[in-house]
Amino acid sequence: MVPPERKSVADVLRERAETVRLALDRFLTPPDEPSRDLYEAMRYMALGGGKKLRPVLVLLAAEACGGSADAAMPAACAVEMVHTYSLIHDDLPAMDNDDLRHGRPSCHKAFGEAMAILAGDGLLTEAFAVLASYVPDAVRARRLVAELALAAGAAGMVGGQVADLKAERQRLNDETLLEIIHRLKTARMIEAAAVMGAIVAGASEHFERSLRAYGSHLGLAFQIADDILDAAASTEVLGKTAGKDAAAGKLTYVTCYGIEAARRRARSEADRAIDALGPFDHQADLLGDMARFVVERTF
Amino acid sequence: MVPPERKSVADVLRERAETVRLALDRFLTPPDEPSRDLYEAMRYMALGGGKKLRPVLVLLAAEACGGSADAAMPAACAVEMVHTYSLIHDDLPAMDNDDLRHGRPSCHKAFGEAMAILAGDGLLTEAFAVLASYVPDAVRARRLVAELALAAGAAGMVGGQVADLKAERQRLNDETLLEIIHRLKTARMIEAAAVMGAIVAGASEHFERSLRAYGSHLGLAFQIADDILDAAASTEVLGKTAGKDAAAGKLTYVTCYGIEAARRRARSEADRAIDALGPFDHQADLLGDMARFVVERTF
Repeated sequence: MVPPERKSVADVLRERAETVRLALDRFLTPPDEPSRDLYEAMRYMALGGGKKLRPVLVLLAAEACGGSADAAMPAACAVEMVHTYSLIHDDLPAMDNDDLRHGRPSCHKAFGEAMAILAGDGLLTEAFAVLASYVPDAVRARRLVAELALAAGAAGMVGGQVADLKAERQRLNDETLLEIIHRLKTARMIEAAAVMGAIVAGASEHFERSLRAYGSHLGLAFQIADDILDAAASTEVLGKTAGKDAAAGKLTYVTCYGIEAARRRARSEADRAIDALGPFDHQADLLGDMARFVVERTF
Repeated sequence: MVPPERKSVADVLRERAETVRLALDRFLTPPDEPSRDLYEAMRYMALGGGKKLRPVLVLLAAEACGGSADAAMPAACAVEMVHTYSLIHDDLPAMDNDDLRHGRPSCHKAFGEAMAILAGDGLLTEAFAVLASYVPDAVRARRLVAELALAAGAAGMVGGQVADLKAERQRLNDETLLEIIHRLKTARMIEAAAVMGAIVAGASEHFERSLRAYGSHLGLAFQIADDILDAAASTEVLGKTAGKDAAAGKLTYVTCYGIEAARRRARSEADRAIDALGPFDHQADLLGDMARFVVERTF
């Protein structure tokens, strides 16, 4: 098979993010009253800014396994809904208390705290409704629900947020805890996105395992890159409050190891992500490009 | 088939609630660090007080359709996890701001606001993990996820809470809105519990439809009874703050129609629930008893 002409990965990510945004717009069509206000808050965050890295990863992983992006779209949107809910709840005053997200007022600043809690709850629930309603194959739908719920729940992302808040409030500076937080809070969901692409495409166990390893390393690389950007970039560039980690006493790769060691670790995780793509031929080239792209932002 | 010997419905509900509590205890086994604190908060609310009406309804509905309670237990626990999350989030300061639940401090009073938000998020997510991991038949698992997510989400319970807060804050007193709130916020989840019992038992469409109608009427009867109890009973008896609806300007059947009309309506909904059980033989007797039991509490 002749590999398709290569666009820059930034262009591909932008184009694919746009297809995800259109699909989310359809999945989150507001009903008549009484939930119109709620949908407005859900859509504000889900359709607003953001790179849509996770859903695009679902699409690219599915394509790497010979599946179609169309068939992977419900899974992609479900992943993004869960990610969006986590941002909304993390920004709440009782949590990270952040007023800015994607360059705009965060959800509770725009809609009030009660509505933000409920918009998050609504998006989290809707993610599972989408998987159960729009993935035709029941066995795949069930596996997608399990993968997403385990990655997002108490043993994954929610557990990571608990550990993160604990580390912050007790000013803990512990390397083991840092790994746990980064793995649970970010890497596990990015791993799930890659695996869900494999599941929806009906990939073999072998390819699925490769994508799990890829996603796990990519996820760590991404989180370390995010820590570096928080320390190095301005609020204007980030679209969220910069320098906040250090100010809040957050445990990050940069506060723990310094910026140079963090850069080395991010690059090494990206390399390991690319290595994990070994079993794939050129059909996974975009996934490799994506891993490089994620850490290049930090230089 | 000879119908089994009849116990009082109160005894049956208590016994069945205990089996649900044991199963929840297993499903919510705390992992090692770092999520131990989180599980403590999740378990505090899920295993604490409460009648476990919804999960017991799943079990009884499954048995009415010839299924086993054991096979229905994951679905029952999933329903209770979603109900518990909704209580935790509803009690939050930004929402109903309630300090008392099941006769004990509410989750955020006991564990802090951040942990309460995350415990709710964890329980909601875990509900779907349980359905996807412990229901052996993929087609049934997928239908259970869809039923629960649609009942709990923006078009169901979360939407109902939005409408409820709006009515309270704007001091709306509108009969149509009251119906919408009660249907979405409470009745839809009780309906889902009955339907999930049918799904997990592999019931025919005919029986499933009957149970949907039963659950919908039972849910309304239950919510109206709850409104009456809030107006008439003491905080000590309820285990949650009594008289709070009127104080908060909440829109309820009692504030809208008065207590006598509310009682008549509750009884009429219970009668309609029982009528919906027509296609069943004696195997649904307990469901009928439950409908009566729900409204008898109010006299």
